[in-house]
Amino acid sequence: MPPERVSFETENWTVVSRSKSLMHASPRNIVLFSPGRCDAVGDPEATLGLKGAALHKLACAGLPVPAGIIITVPALAGVTTLPAALFRRIQAALRDIASPAGVSERPALFAVRCSPAVPVPGLMPAVLNIGMTDALARRLADTFQNPFFAHELFGWLIPTFSAAVAGISRSEFEDEAATAVTQEEPSFEMAADLVSRFKGIWQQHTGKPWPDDPAVQLRLSLDAALASWNSPVAVAYRRKAGMPEHRELALVVQAIPFGNCDPASGVASVCTRDPTTGERGLTGDFASATQGGVYESHDVVPVAGLKKSNPAAHAAVLKIGRSLETLYRDAVDFDFVAEAGRVFLLNCRPARRTPIAAARMACDMVREKLIDKAEALLRIDPESLTQLLHPRIDPAADKTEIATGSAASPGAACGKLAFSAEEALTRASEGEPIILARVETEASDVVAMSVCEGILTTSGGMTSHAAVVARTMALPCIVGAAGLSIDPVRQTLTTAAGQILGATDSVTLDGAAGAVYAGELPTIEPELPKPFRTLLAWADEYRTLGVRANADTPRDAEIARAFGADGIGLCRTEHMFFDPRRIIHMRRMILADTAESRAAALDRLLPLQRDDFIGIFTAMAGLPVTIRLLDPPLHEFLPRSEVDQQALAAEMGLTLEQIRHRVEQLHESNPMLGHRGCRLCITYPEILRMQVRAILEAACACRQHRIKVQPEIMVPLACDRRELDYLRQITMETAEAVFTKQHTRVDFSFGTMIEVPRAALLAGSIAESAEFFSFGTNDLTQLTLGLSRDDASRFLPDYLAKGIFQNDPFQTLDTSGVGQLIRHAADSGRRARPGLKCGLCGEHGGDPQSIRFCHEAKVDYVSASPWRIPLARLAAAQAAIIGKQGLEDSKV
Amino acid sequence: MPPERVSFETENWTVVSRSKSLMHASPRNIVLFSPGRCDAVGDPEATLGLKGAALHKLACAGLPVPAGIIITVPALAGVTTLPAALFRRIQAALRDIASPAGVSERPALFAVRCSPAVPVPGLMPAVLNIGMTDALARRLADTFQNPFFAHELFGWLIPTFSAAVAGISRSEFEDEAATAVTQEEPSFEMAADLVSRFKGIWQQHTGKPWPDDPAVQLRLSLDAALASWNSPVAVAYRRKAGMPEHRELALVVQAIPFGNCDPASGVASVCTRDPTTGERGLTGDFASATQGGVYESHDVVPVAGLKKSNPAAHAAVLKIGRSLETLYRDAVDFDFVAEAGRVFLLNCRPARRTPIAAARMACDMVREKLIDKAEALLRIDPESLTQLLHPRIDPAADKTEIATGSAASPGAACGKLAFSAEEALTRASEGEPIILARVETEASDVVAMSVCEGILTTSGGMTSHAAVVARTMALPCIVGAAGLSIDPVRQTLTTAAGQILGATDSVTLDGAAGAVYAGELPTIEPELPKPFRTLLAWADEYRTLGVRANADTPRDAEIARAFGADGIGLCRTEHMFFDPRRIIHMRRMILADTAESRAAALDRLLPLQRDDFIGIFTAMAGLPVTIRLLDPPLHEFLPRSEVDQQALAAEMGLTLEQIRHRVEQLHESNPMLGHRGCRLCITYPEILRMQVRAILEAACACRQHRIKVQPEIMVPLACDRRELDYLRQITMETAEAVFTKQHTRVDFSFGTMIEVPRAALLAGSIAESAEFFSFGTNDLTQLTLGLSRDDASRFLPDYLAKGIFQNDPFQTLDTSGVGQLIRHAADSGRRARPGLKCGLCGEHGGDPQSIRFCHEAKVDYVSASPWRIPLARLAAAQAAIIGKQGLEDSKV
Repeated sequence: MPPERVSFETENWTVVSRSKSLMHASPRNIVLFSPGRCDAVGDPEATLGLKGAALHKLACAGLPVPAGIIITVPALAGVTTLPAALFRRIQAALRDIASPAGVSERPALFAVRCSPAVPVPGLMPAVLNIGMTDALARRLADTFQNPFFAHELFGWLIPTFSAAVAGISRSEFEDEAATAVTQEEPSFEMAADLVSRFKGIWQQHTGKPWPDDPAVQLRLSLDAALASWNSPVAVAYRRKAGMPEHRELALVVQAIPFGNCDPASGVASVCTRDPTTGERGLTGDFASATQGGVYESHDVVPVAGLKKSNPAAHAAVLKIGRSLETLYRDAVDFDFVAEAGRVFLLNCRPARRTPIAAARMACDMVREKLIDKAEALLRIDPESLTQLLHPRIDPAADKTEIATGSAASPGAACGKLAFSAEEALTRASEGEPIILARVETEASDVVAMSVCEGILTTSGGMTSHAAVVARTMALPCIVGAAGLSIDPVRQTLTTAAGQILGATDSVTLDGAAGAVYAGELPTIEPELPKPFRTLLAWADEYRTLGVRANADTPRDAEIARAFGADGIGLCRTEHMFFDPRRIIHMRRMILADTAESRAAALDRLLPLQRDDFIGIFTAMAGLPVTIRLLDPPLHEFLPRSEVDQQALAAEMGLTLEQIRHRVEQLHESNPMLGHRGCRLCITYPEILRMQVRAILEAACACRQHRIKVQPEIMVPLACDRRELDYLRQITMETAEAVFTKQHTRVDFSFGTMIEVPRAALLAGSIAESAEFFSFGTNDLTQLTLGLSRDDASRFLPDYLAKGIFQNDPFQTLDTSGVGQLIRHAADSGRRARPGLKCGLCGEHGGDPQSIRFCHEAKVDYVSASPWRIPLARLAAAQAAIIGKQGLEDSKV
Repeated sequence: MPPERVSFETENWTVVSRSKSLMHASPRNIVLFSPGRCDAVGDPEATLGLKGAALHKLACAGLPVPAGIIITVPALAGVTTLPAALFRRIQAALRDIASPAGVSERPALFAVRCSPAVPVPGLMPAVLNIGMTDALARRLADTFQNPFFAHELFGWLIPTFSAAVAGISRSEFEDEAATAVTQEEPSFEMAADLVSRFKGIWQQHTGKPWPDDPAVQLRLSLDAALASWNSPVAVAYRRKAGMPEHRELALVVQAIPFGNCDPASGVASVCTRDPTTGERGLTGDFASATQGGVYESHDVVPVAGLKKSNPAAHAAVLKIGRSLETLYRDAVDFDFVAEAGRVFLLNCRPARRTPIAAARMACDMVREKLIDKAEALLRIDPESLTQLLHPRIDPAADKTEIATGSAASPGAACGKLAFSAEEALTRASEGEPIILARVETEASDVVAMSVCEGILTTSGGMTSHAAVVARTMALPCIVGAAGLSIDPVRQTLTTAAGQILGATDSVTLDGAAGAVYAGELPTIEPELPKPFRTLLAWADEYRTLGVRANADTPRDAEIARAFGADGIGLCRTEHMFFDPRRIIHMRRMILADTAESRAAALDRLLPLQRDDFIGIFTAMAGLPVTIRLLDPPLHEFLPRSEVDQQALAAEMGLTLEQIRHRVEQLHESNPMLGHRGCRLCITYPEILRMQVRAILEAACACRQHRIKVQPEIMVPLACDRRELDYLRQITMETAEAVFTKQHTRVDFSFGTMIEVPRAALLAGSIAESAEFFSFGTNDLTQLTLGLSRDDASRFLPDYLAKGIFQNDPFQTLDTSGVGQLIRHAADSGRRARPGLKCGLCGEHGGDPQSIRFCHEAKVDYVSASPWRIPLARLAAAQAAIIGKQGLEDSKV
């Protein structure tokens, strides 16, 4: 006896579009799938949608998916309600599909699902158990003596159908069910009563009786799925994402296995390996006697338990898992239904996993020869590396959150509050762990920041001064914690709840989450687990892009080297001047009236800076070190408050008026575009002479100790080759004087930042005077977009929300604008000077997307903060692998 | 009997370089010239130098130049002292040259002069009368009974030779001569005595007797000329000008006519037309019986007087003048010597002339068919037009200068001093002429500035706010008058001399000279004289570049139209908001909490702005008007001083704290790169809606009065097409609403400024959303060079002095950097949208060099301040003519 079929063959429909019937009669409009059968052609995702393509793939591989049909994207193009001819073909196709378990007493019921070509929120959720009728329910209850099973099928159909077709909220049905299920053992009557109450809800909303006709259920579900393409959520999402309006949607009608038909049946969500640790072996839960999801059931056991309770199903699942890993060449998550001793695969996707699990899985799979090293590297999210490189708050700790802000720089930090740079410096020097709490930070806070455990500000965004400097220093940092208010005079921090904290109170920051906690919480130290070390060693085999560090101190240099940096790409000399022991000389220099008194003040800085360079050169022995000449405008070195100005006046033997006058003289409307960068050394060549002497005397000293040094002197903010010509001449003269006096010589190179658009435009001419380029993408982005990094927080969120910008251009390189300048500059620079070395420093050097651009644009190296070196090494390897794959693909 | 020759044939020289003798024996190493004879080949200026080429040209034309030789640039290449072979050839060549007047009793004496290929200061001045000896002096004195004539020849030779060869200052000889000439009638003995005392000075400095040998005089003079190429002045100049170090110098040895041989002889400097008025007819002075310059003699008569005193010479000079005008196709200045009834032409160059003379000469010469209209247009310096368009101080007035500053905007202005915008507005509205005196101006002063006669500031440079705004308004302006100090509280201005001026005192500014005078001086009203009007009409026939005006008010628009503007290229709407009657609504808008209250405040501004647009559209009927949407950051509209903030708080019913808070909220580190331009309308679309309504309601109103309007709505500071997409949608919706309500429609276009480098880089994509481009080169220059216009004055002068920049990039467009972006944007914009209209607004639109670039880069129009429209029309015509000539040249 052939298995029973539910008839979808009624004709009580309005035929909307006969004219299109021919088009829809094409055999490719409906694709049938069942294990081992797959008759689709062309690009599966474009034709079948994501879900359709996945089912098709599983079916083709012979895996036990319930059979079904896919109504293709082309078949549905331009269709508002299903044309009669197409619907007839659907009906005919479904006629051939049996219930999954093939039991003759039970006809196949079906689910209708949307299958968009790319994910679109707001589409119709699945309608389940289409084909269920009163007559069938009665018969099933009689036959199986299981009122629950029969009516549960209705219990899924009516709410999902009502939501899809009439927009009735599922909560109405849930509320109804909650009032009904009061007794422990529900009877057939009770279940039947609930179903009829569900139908009552339908009728109450639609004014029509519940459609007990399977063909009507199917047709209305399919039309509702089509209509959901234009739901407000879907339309808004597509508009924001810049997606085309034309529909790219296939529909799947698939037979439903019954996990609820007996107690041995059930549903499960499993992963082929442990998603937390990466260990091999099935992980997941099995819920028995249900058609719903695992997490909606209360009768859940670990899937491994099936080995005892249902060894046949367990063996089948293990086999499916192995097949899926071979098919996907990865660990996978999948759902299955066990029905009457058979196992049906519902879906499959690459497994979700923690960063550490990802690394371990990748390494294991290379050993298992499931994938090669290149693919293993592509499986790791570079950002996950930085998460592991910071201390974390012990998850077991008791926490009291007092505020949240932007997670500006990851890591956990505990310390007592300090409200000014001076206080932070004093107390930190006495060994107290300090969290610097400020409304916002400024350049003069930088030295204090470097001795603190973490930074907390109440204003500013991800690209504010505090955020940028903290990331460079790998200091945990939370910015814009707007719920807090800081009173710098009273030295208090008030929480939104009114709690007042002072200098004797501790707080703990979770820089990765942006959460501020009261008190001192226990933390877990950072570690780079072995699988990551293995992966990074592989990464170095693949990458062609160099990875250098932004490091300003010997300590930074040591960290960078330990993390595998190929050199220092940006050593900022100004941070050395902000040191409290040194800033007085800098201030003397700025307040000097003559070139001679300026030179005298600089002479005091020379030995200090030379010692810094000796430390850095020693830490980086054998590797190149790029040193940027003084960059910030001079006013950043002078105190702003009257108290500090008064103190400086007293120290210098000047009047407050004189200090103020100089501060006013140095005031600029737009300091970013002002008297800074190489403009300073052109006005005050004695600064250049001092810095070149410090660099080369340090290099000579190292050389005398047989330490190999490769100094690269870098000019900031150049916009014309004549600036470089002028500065190079002085540099070379100074170098000759140093070498003569030191009786030795060191090779060094002289190059320039490319951070002004004009420099990029005229790179051909500039390369004649510069031996290397380094793209300073922070400033280049500011100037190319006319966008101040410090001020953008006022409107950038709006730009991102309105979809005008896809990314924050200070985090991810604007490849179409800024990238165009970089490509042009590298190309024309190298035409003028073959082999010209081009690096990139700035925040983008630690951003994976930007690193990929650098690889493609043939930049020689990126320079990132020491803590992002591992990330950059991995991202560079990924870029190389993807680039090579692209090349091979294009050859085919 | 052949004319006597001085023998240069001695051989008492050290021969330095025999080896090169062959090379220097080439016949082209020495070029001979005499009237009608010219044997040079190749490019005259490169081979013969400037002076050599000019003499060669005159000789070729058969004009009566004294004969001579030119030792060519190639002949002297790499030579330090003259090789013997070359010197022998020089001697031989000179042997054939007779004294100019050809009188046998007088041998030829010679001058040695430098002839560089391009002007170089610091080269050897001419050595005169080489060949003069004691024996010759005695003989000449005897023969001519003229001790003065004979010894005057020595009197020129010894000082010029001594200066050139031994570096002896000419003042030593002048002092000696001054002590000697005490009697009225000098005797032969006295003259001979002075010569021997001159020789004594030589001997005293060199320790050698005076060289009485013509060959020695010649050789040493030539060597000194060669050596002068490396004089410190010449070296420094060439380095600064970026000229090559290799010598590009020819030497001229030319016979000297004797203007001092008798009382009818003499020298004259003349112009073929009046250099002040341009009237036809010889103008200049004749000095009789002298060999020196006209202005060193006290016996000077107008050259016209020769007609009576020496009619033959007069006729000869007239004939020479006519020949020279034909040869040079221009009015010329020339010097001649009359010697014994014959006239010798010494030199010739296009005449120096006043602007008005230039215009008259050009028009006359077209009528005379000496030149065509195109050439006439090329003869006029466009800058001269603006000088004529401003009132000038009556040159006859008695003046007391109290300070000087930078001449920021030309014209004369008198008025009483006002020290604040408020006071200036109040008093000006009562009819008082006001000079606004400020340390520096800011945006909130703009309305006050527009009602003043002139602006005076004590700080800032040519590109400071005051300077830029004043030029736009064609207001006389002096900035950085550092000798003055302003006390805004006491309302006084103190001069360097200690004089204190207050609100009741008048001053007069000469904006073209940068001079500040005490009191009210009489002025002369501006006029555009007829020849200029003729020339501008011709200019319009030639130019292809449109010339529009930057005009913000109906009055500006009227002036622009009167000066021949083709439309308005930049109408800034924000200046309308600074008006004291309106700013309160703007402030309400900024201080509003909700979009609704913002809209309510904007509703109050709408009718005011609409009326402005009606006025502007009416003034420009039939011509396009480009209106830029609100551009400056909002904080510019809020008061800065506590007093003003307090007043605003009272007016608005807010606390001072609330006002302050908003001011702080709006504070930006780099406002140039901040929340401004189209970013404002993206955050606050209600501003856009109000402005679009005001523009289009005004356009509809004009249309109803049959006034033809062509509004062009322009978005500032865009950097991405999605900004335009967003704003365009709102613009179109608003427009539809206006048209529906007004029952009429007007055509308008929607376009964008290109002032952010990224917009230029992505112009192809931006053109898909913009119907026109306007290059905002002020901001584009700031961003491309990373250079703030407000702050650059601190180091730009140093950059210009050190030759790093050739021009101030805010005055003359940086064609290699910014220009590259403009060309790229215009090309790629037009590829995306064929026929895309591209304009340029900003200061560069009124700069002739930048206008020429715009023509070459195929920009459709420039937009300049109304007062620079005539200049721009002429410069555009010149660019078209030069471009066409270049094209024709390249065809040949």
